[in-house]
Amino acid sequence: MGSLTMIIVMHQDATADEVTLVVDRLKTLGADVQVTTEAGQAVVSGTTESLLAEQGPWKDLPGVERVVPAIPGGRKVGRQFKSIDTVVRVGDVDIGDGSMTVVAGPCAVESRDQLLTTALAVKAAGAQILRGDAFKPRTSTYSFQGLGKPALEMLAEARDVTGLPFVAEVLDPRDVEMVSNYADMVRIGTRNMSNQALLREVGKQSKPVQLKRGRAATVEEWIDAGEYVSAAGNGQIVMVERGIRGFDPVARNTLDLTAVAIVKMQTHLPVMVDPSHASGRSDLVAPLARAAVAAGADGLMLDVHPDPSVALVDGPQALLPSEFAQLMTEVAAIAAALKRSV
Amino acid sequence: MGSLTMIIVMHQDATADEVTLVVDRLKTLGADVQVTTEAGQAVVSGTTESLLAEQGPWKDLPGVERVVPAIPGGRKVGRQFKSIDTVVRVGDVDIGDGSMTVVAGPCAVESRDQLLTTALAVKAAGAQILRGDAFKPRTSTYSFQGLGKPALEMLAEARDVTGLPFVAEVLDPRDVEMVSNYADMVRIGTRNMSNQALLREVGKQSKPVQLKRGRAATVEEWIDAGEYVSAAGNGQIVMVERGIRGFDPVARNTLDLTAVAIVKMQTHLPVMVDPSHASGRSDLVAPLARAAVAAGADGLMLDVHPDPSVALVDGPQALLPSEFAQLMTEVAAIAAALKRSV
Amino acid sequence: MGSLTMIIVMHQDATADEVTLVVDRLKTLGADVQVTTEAGQAVVSGTTESLLAEQGPWKDLPGVERVVPAIPGGRKVGRQFKSIDTVVRVGDVDIGDGSMTVVAGPCAVESRDQLLTTALAVKAAGAQILRGDAFKPRTSTYSFQGLGKPALEMLAEARDVTGLPFVAEVLDPRDVEMVSNYADMVRIGTRNMSNQALLREVGKQSKPVQLKRGRAATVEEWIDAGEYVSAAGNGQIVMVERGIRGFDPVARNTLDLTAVAIVKMQTHLPVMVDPSHASGRSDLVAPLARAAVAAGADGLMLDVHPDPSVALVDGPQALLPSEFAQLMTEVAAIAAALKRSV
Amino acid sequence: MGSLTMIIVMHQDATADEVTLVVDRLKTLGADVQVTTEAGQAVVSGTTESLLAEQGPWKDLPGVERVVPAIPGGRKVGRQFKSIDTVVRVGDVDIGDGSMTVVAGPCAVESRDQLLTTALAVKAAGAQILRGDAFKPRTSTYSFQGLGKPALEMLAEARDVTGLPFVAEVLDPRDVEMVSNYADMVRIGTRNMSNQALLREVGKQSKPVQLKRGRAATVEEWIDAGEYVSAAGNGQIVMVERGIRGFDPVARNTLDLTAVAIVKMQTHLPVMVDPSHASGRSDLVAPLARAAVAAGADGLMLDVHPDPSVALVDGPQALLPSEFAQLMTEVAAIAAALKRSV
Repeated sequence: MGSLTMIIVMHQDATADEVTLVVDRLKTLGADVQVTTEAGQAVVSGTTESLLAEQGPWKDLPGVERVVPAIPGGRKVGRQFKSIDTVVRVGDVDIGDGSMTVVAGPCAVESRDQLLTTALAVKAAGAQILRGDAFKPRTSTYSFQGLGKPALEMLAEARDVTGLPFVAEVLDPRDVEMVSNYADMVRIGTRNMSNQALLREVGKQSKPVQLKRGRAATVEEWIDAGEYVSAAGNGQIVMVERGIRGFDPVARNTLDLTAVAIVKMQTHLPVMVDPSHASGRSDLVAPLARAAVAAGADGLMLDVHPDPSVALVDGPQALLPSEFAQLMTEVAAIAAALKRSV
Repeated sequence: MGSLTMIIVMHQDATADEVTLVVDRLKTLGADVQVTTEAGQAVVSGTTESLLAEQGPWKDLPGVERVVPAIPGGRKVGRQFKSIDTVVRVGDVDIGDGSMTVVAGPCAVESRDQLLTTALAVKAAGAQILRGDAFKPRTSTYSFQGLGKPALEMLAEARDVTGLPFVAEVLDPRDVEMVSNYADMVRIGTRNMSNQALLREVGKQSKPVQLKRGRAATVEEWIDAGEYVSAAGNGQIVMVERGIRGFDPVARNTLDLTAVAIVKMQTHLPVMVDPSHASGRSDLVAPLARAAVAAGADGLMLDVHPDPSVALVDGPQALLPSEFAQLMTEVAAIAAALKRSV
Repeated sequence: MGSLTMIIVMHQDATADEVTLVVDRLKTLGADVQVTTEAGQAVVSGTTESLLAEQGPWKDLPGVERVVPAIPGGRKVGRQFKSIDTVVRVGDVDIGDGSMTVVAGPCAVESRDQLLTTALAVKAAGAQILRGDAFKPRTSTYSFQGLGKPALEMLAEARDVTGLPFVAEVLDPRDVEMVSNYADMVRIGTRNMSNQALLREVGKQSKPVQLKRGRAATVEEWIDAGEYVSAAGNGQIVMVERGIRGFDPVARNTLDLTAVAIVKMQTHLPVMVDPSHASGRSDLVAPLARAAVAAGADGLMLDVHPDPSVALVDGPQALLPSEFAQLMTEVAAIAAALKRSV
Repeated sequence: MGSLTMIIVMHQDATADEVTLVVDRLKTLGADVQVTTEAGQAVVSGTTESLLAEQGPWKDLPGVERVVPAIPGGRKVGRQFKSIDTVVRVGDVDIGDGSMTVVAGPCAVESRDQLLTTALAVKAAGAQILRGDAFKPRTSTYSFQGLGKPALEMLAEARDVTGLPFVAEVLDPRDVEMVSNYADMVRIGTRNMSNQALLREVGKQSKPVQLKRGRAATVEEWIDAGEYVSAAGNGQIVMVERGIRGFDPVARNTLDLTAVAIVKMQTHLPVMVDPSHASGRSDLVAPLARAAVAAGADGLMLDVHPDPSVALVDGPQALLPSEFAQLMTEVAAIAAALKRSV
């Protein structure tokens, strides 16, 4: 109430002194100031209660290119800050460039065999990025929690074998460096969307970030979580819709494609959809994946398992490799109908 | 809790006496028995607490073709009762035959001009059925409630002019006969999905029925509402998903395409999607409409208005005729990609 | 949307001509005008798009006592219209006069014996009003739907025997007259809160009305439903909170006592709480009933059954008569602590 | 699916060797074994897929007192493990001993003056524990995030001045030791209920823990989060209901007193209610606080601020000291009516 977020974008060739001048002016208004770099340009941001902020001659200061209109809720991930789409690069895969990107693999890494078998199968069917988690956040403390570091080593091996970059979830700020060292992309899961210590830590490292929507987060809160990552220094963010909590027990969650359309309008970030975790039922994955493509998602993330009946985590939602290959054909057809490539 | 629904399908050439015998046997077990006709076959159904029901030699009675397994939740609209898809015929339009059917028009009939202008525009862009309501259920008793019978007359004129059959909502059991006399299809709206007096009355007349999902109904409850219509005698039902109530104020409702996939699996009824009422925002209608097609819906229902800014009801969600025409192109492309016609 | 609801309260001794003058003026502005009587005073209300409405010299017209400020959402059930609490009289029982009123009895009337046994038991334990339904709105068309008119006759007999007035639900506008003839109070159930044909019909008869909250209705929508009844002519309304739909399967619904506090602030109507239907579990009824009293509810409605294990409807939530008597003691203690009588 | 949690309670005088024997046996079945101490008794727990676990002669091993029935979902915080209520001691205050405990203070520590003024006021009105946060998890990265360590020093000073122990939230596993060194009780907030790294870290330190319910967590998930803390070694847990996410914008959250009653039934832990954060509106705090006491809560947590209009965080929900004092009187009256002390 009354607080104002100022975002000031500096010229590409602004000097350190020019940046410092802007920072100091903002600090005199009581703001807690941050400086990050976006596409080679310094961005100074800060929030203050002072009404003077808005009226200051910011644009006239040396080195300032432009000032994002200081409306409440101003955010660097927002369209008002940057109108062109952000393309996020994972290994040599581009997400958000107009094509459809498919991430696939087992929910959890269970063994070297399980992982390699799945990785080769999803590669063959056309997946561009491998998934497989080393750390699993389970509802019960007594459930399988993931294999940890050895799983990361298996994932690195699978990358060597298949050429697919991989994404893995991180649960603890103290593990970010380790996961980031192995993985090509790190993920914040649904349970940790509001874990701001983790958001900040992930924002400080340099690998691109998948940010899943909290299971009962509004679209605004989800975008605000993205801003935590961005403000900490990392703008390479892919938003992942994975279903929200609802009243109907017929599926695990309610996939919310309205949110996909809105995040595409309100931010410049790519958006993916995870129909496997959204539905929790393999028989619902194909219709929901097709719908996500048609709604305008930039990519899909899909659980695939060579034998779902023995999966340690989320077996009922995993596709068989053959089902995955069939779905890839349908996805390609819809993408083509909408003049997009896969 | 212990109660059992028996559904017994008679041979096409079963005699009246044979039907009566089955009815009487079921009555002796304490059941309240109903007899309806499905595809020319008498169907006897009833619910009883008696354990004897299940064990009775029903199949051996003269004239009995088959007995739907007496599981709890047995329903005539269910796949277990009839595995092939029901095709619902509205005027000369078939819904559920594999093609995409598009219903379009103004939310409410406001005037003869507004209706005819819109009807001609949606016809030109490829809509097959006209919508336009004479009775509007409004949250406030002081809001515009619809023009009533004169609107039905305008709709009939629009049908004459365009050749499009039309669907109109009915709110009161005492109005069912009048609406049914004018319209080619009658609609139960979201506020009345649990209005069982109205469900039964609509089930007793012969025009096909659109049944919108209640705004916080589970899929099971929605299907059960369809069973009220079916059990009352009318199996020509199209289910309409129109968004469910959620926690996020960013859109009016949360469109639930998971429900579309599930109703297609669990019942033999066609399913339509209404992205206009689901989102309440015209900028969300196109992505959600495309997604609905890809998810497997049999049709779309869309609000179109020649000048949304002056609409008396739900203007912010209405498409302009030009936007509608553009969307029809995208819908056709996706349908074709999935080997379906429009 | 630009529309304005005018509510004009006439002096107690205003003449018919004075009322007509106000009505006519409002009609010339395009309003659909209603005249009702509140506490012996004529109330003229209407909604119009005309900006002139607000500026008219309404207060200066002969016979006008006052004009409710014409804000959007103006309602006769609102505090802005009437600041003192409405007391609703059922038989000789007053609801909303500061005391706690307890309605108790079986969910559904199943037999004369079941009803009389329960009625005598709840009377002995201190209940002031009897409940027991003749018509039950069931999710499945194959479930027990109530005994109908014979149940109303049994309820009338139970009233003769115990001296307790009774409340019964009505489901169909065509049954309102019959139910109203038997019952001392009629109820609109949760499934029909948005059934506006029924709201209006109940508003036209003279018995007091219980209006249950829809299972996913906002507080605003619930109050708006009350306004439908009030605008149709009947201001003797008791609002009943009965739990809202939520994501947690641990209980049938989520009892929302926040809503009780808000309805008490925003309207002048009494509010009751039904912890039996809210929880669906008899072990939760006592803590929730106690909480409702402490939150400021004017009354409780409780399911009681002599043998819940054989109840045809909602047995798991019914209290035994002995449990009900014990709860009444706790309720009385809390009411006394808050300086209220039972 | 198929995994089994074994919980084996050792005699108070079991030897280290006896404990080791049980641990080793469980390990041979493939379990990841934990040993914690509850009320002076070693408790060995582990989860295994082996069917042999259940059938093993655990009770006959030397030193074993009893085996918690190995049902799925077995938990040390559950009633099945320990039937008598856990009393949690914070400084010299007992929570869960049948009395009502009141925690009060500012949402966030803003300054030494603000804190001391509030602390003295709540002490005078009868609060037993002080609240005041040093770290605030804010939706926007640009909002005030708390004063950090200096706030903990101010809280320690306020404790010295008033004699009230204090509770403070912790957001980051790396801050647990620091917060725990200052505070008498540490809190896991609603945004971090599923932050399992934090749950485990808090479980490893020795101060009692407040565990707030996640804003869309089921009761089962909330209890499971408590089990994470307990399994990590700390059984001194107080559960705090603070409202759940719902569809009605009329209040910030929906206070769920049903959950309070269920947690009291299913676990042996004390339960508190935070009506300030639940409602977000100071005018709703009193009715909801009264309701919480009547529902059986063991305590209340209330925001109090000397001047809510200038509060940096959540001002609209804070009570004035005078309002807090008035509420304490009502709370005492209800507690007394239910034979409880404050």
